[in-house]
Amino acid sequence: MPGDWPRIWPFWHRIVAAGETYTWDPATDADTARELWMRPPPARVFVVEDGADILGSALLKPNYGPPADRVANAGFMVDPDHGGRGVGRRLAEHVLDAARADGYRAMVFNAVVETNTGAVRLWRSLGFTILATVPEAFDHPRHGPVGLHIMHRRL
Amino acid sequence: MPGDWPRIWPFWHRIVAAGETYTWDPATDADTARELWMRPPPARVFVVEDGADILGSALLKPNYGPPADRVANAGFMVDPDHGGRGVGRRLAEHVLDAARADGYRAMVFNAVVETNTGAVRLWRSLGFTILATVPEAFDHPRHGPVGLHIMHRRL
Repeated sequence: MPGDWPRIWPFWHRIVAAGETYTWDPATDADTARELWMRPPPARVFVVEDGADILGSALLKPNYGPPADRVANAGFMVDPDHGGRGVGRRLAEHVLDAARADGYRAMVFNAVVETNTGAVRLWRSLGFTILATVPEAFDHPRHGPVGLHIMHRRL
Repeated sequence: MPGDWPRIWPFWHRIVAAGETYTWDPATDADTARELWMRPPPARVFVVEDGADILGSALLKPNYGPPADRVANAGFMVDPDHGGRGVGRRLAEHVLDAARADGYRAMVFNAVVETNTGAVRLWRSLGFTILATVPEAFDHPRHGPVGLHIMHRRL
């Protein structure tokens, strides 16, 4: 719901501003971020709530235009203060089920930073494979140029 | 230049409406198409002119946000009425030079329809390799579900 955004933005901003895991401008402001994340249908936005808190959010959308719009793409953000508790995994399982129900035949992640090993491990455990790696594509603030994995699974 | 658009749109529309080579909505209207193609900097739009005619156009832009914005992406449209005359190749060579001059380190095509063999052959001859193929991702109007190649070359 649009009203969720003020509770998503703090961790969205923290994750993107760190510049380690997303290929989005670390300086993205709140209005631009809301447009990127809170997209209209056919996109869907998911949140994991715990009382008044939002622990994580996911964005599910077509990865391509209509001739190829049965391939989904998804983005996941879990509040770092609530990491390590399985929030990301539960959210991902839910989004995979939703994507299947929406009629998507596959899901693609276009740019998983290869040093984001927790994410790579999670996606592998959920059935994704690395189709390819774009070499030295991402300038990591600590590791320098690292690859971007393209990951895929059928639904 | 913005004034080029009225001469780009007719073949842009014809190519996208055919639904065989681009992962954009075949029903894209002129205003939406102009926003997709005539992007502001750092994107650059190129045209091949022959007298008063525009024979083809290319769009060069970062493929990702800032932590990975030294990887370029490009799209190419050549008026089918002027195909087979080397327009695409000359345009591509020019755009590769421009991308290098702009400081891009590599170029990625995210979704080359595998049945678009003329394009695949051209990109290979210009040094691109197929990093991976997203299987059965594109619903081709005549061939059914076909793969989308992700192609890459260093600059």
